[in-house]
Amino acid sequence: MAKIKFIISRFFAYILRRWVSCTPFNFVRLRLYRLSGLTVGRKCSILMGCELRYPHKIILGDHCVVNRDVLLDGRGGLLTLGNNVDVAQEVVIWTLGHDIHDDFHRDIGAPVTIEDFVWIGHRAIIMPGVTLGRGAVVAAGAVVTKSVPAMSIVAGVPAKVIGQRQSALSYTKFHRPWFE
Amino acid sequence: MAKIKFIISRFFAYILRRWVSCTPFNFVRLRLYRLSGLTVGRKCSILMGCELRYPHKIILGDHCVVNRDVLLDGRGGLLTLGNNVDVAQEVVIWTLGHDIHDDFHRDIGAPVTIEDFVWIGHRAIIMPGVTLGRGAVVAAGAVVTKSVPAMSIVAGVPAKVIGQRQSALSYTKFHRPWFE
Amino acid sequence: MAKIKFIISRFFAYILRRWVSCTPFNFVRLRLYRLSGLTVGRKCSILMGCELRYPHKIILGDHCVVNRDVLLDGRGGLLTLGNNVDVAQEVVIWTLGHDIHDDFHRDIGAPVTIEDFVWIGHRAIIMPGVTLGRGAVVAAGAVVTKSVPAMSIVAGVPAKVIGQRQSALSYTKFHRPWFE
Repeated sequence: MAKIKFIISRFFAYILRRWVSCTPFNFVRLRLYRLSGLTVGRKCSILMGCELRYPHKIILGDHCVVNRDVLLDGRGGLLTLGNNVDVAQEVVIWTLGHDIHDDFHRDIGAPVTIEDFVWIGHRAIIMPGVTLGRGAVVAAGAVVTKSVPAMSIVAGVPAKVIGQRQSALSYTKFHRPWFE
Repeated sequence: MAKIKFIISRFFAYILRRWVSCTPFNFVRLRLYRLSGLTVGRKCSILMGCELRYPHKIILGDHCVVNRDVLLDGRGGLLTLGNNVDVAQEVVIWTLGHDIHDDFHRDIGAPVTIEDFVWIGHRAIIMPGVTLGRGAVVAAGAVVTKSVPAMSIVAGVPAKVIGQRQSALSYTKFHRPWFE
Repeated sequence: MAKIKFIISRFFAYILRRWVSCTPFNFVRLRLYRLSGLTVGRKCSILMGCELRYPHKIILGDHCVVNRDVLLDGRGGLLTLGNNVDVAQEVVIWTLGHDIHDDFHRDIGAPVTIEDFVWIGHRAIIMPGVTLGRGAVVAAGAVVTKSVPAMSIVAGVPAKVIGQRQSALSYTKFHRPWFE
């Protein structure tokens, strides 16, 4: 019985990933993601092609924009996005990995927290256990392995602080392009 | 009325991105991209899975090869490719981004110019405002944030010059694989 | 006649890449990959969305896990994976590239060997001619341009040794998630 339940849950994960993510209407996708357990605030958008693993372990605040083909992973711990977070295309946020030194290559997970006004650039990768402080900026293509202080700009593989953001953070994001 | 026009234009962008790009025939894709405003020279190929944003702001010269799953962005300024340019799989060329320090996270754009005989390697990312000089080479996985002189080889995140290309550039590219 | 044969082989490559890889059942995919020439050992899995170029030049040992959206390229030489190799999502392994300095931008290929118990992290790129020694670990987002000694951990673009793996390698991988 538990086995059948598990297979059905995997089937729904497949439907979410392959078919729901291709629906060209944001409100349809959001409704179905919510049904699958995602907690999502007001005026958010999750564009086409995204994958949510364990959506019941993912929390989005208000006015978040999750661009196309993003992977959000809630398998290894809670993945929390604050308000006005901007996640660019093809970003991947992991909460689960393998323990490198483990004799049995076991999984190891840790929660990830993205605070308000963070902007994660195109194709960046965020590793398990990372916290991105309020207003932090991750440059395109960066691989973030350690937590980033508020208002810092990080870049590179692995990501290092390359500057400080000078912004009053006076914006409220809202981005729901048609058919995206 | 303008609103309806806008929605229709977004719908066509969706059709180009999701359906036209999956047509397994180069001549069909090129014809439809041209109809949508792309300027493209002789003997070019744009393989499957590519996305052209604002194709009317993108110009390809002759004998260019744009490999699979490439994203060319014309939203922030003119994106110009010269002749015999080779763009590898999953390359992304942006002309639009956000102003990091802006209080309102506003968009900021700049044109990108790729000169003749440039070779952009697998999964490289080219940022707005960059010019790649004649015969330049971008290594796989590089993130190019600054302009690159002619015949230079750049690599890394961010990309730095690691050598000079020794080539007479005597070739004429033409690559139209069946069903790709 | 040879021309027609070639076109048919390209058509089958397209079917493998676009349709077979989307079949949500591992045993169906494996059977069809085997029919197309792939050599694959016992208890392996190749998850959805993968692309195998020249599958008849690719050899997988036992208990390998090839995650989603991986590209394995056998065009430029034999691509060999040992036993218990773990290839993470979106990894790309090339055996073919272009000769940078060649006057005619000709192709240049070299075989790639991945030994037992290697773990290649998310979105890493392995370049032609590389050998990854037994138990080596490639960090997420790394671009591996040179061979890696056994039990070494490499990271960055280009990848450099950042540590040694402390693991008895006592595991046998087997990962066949439903509908993935």
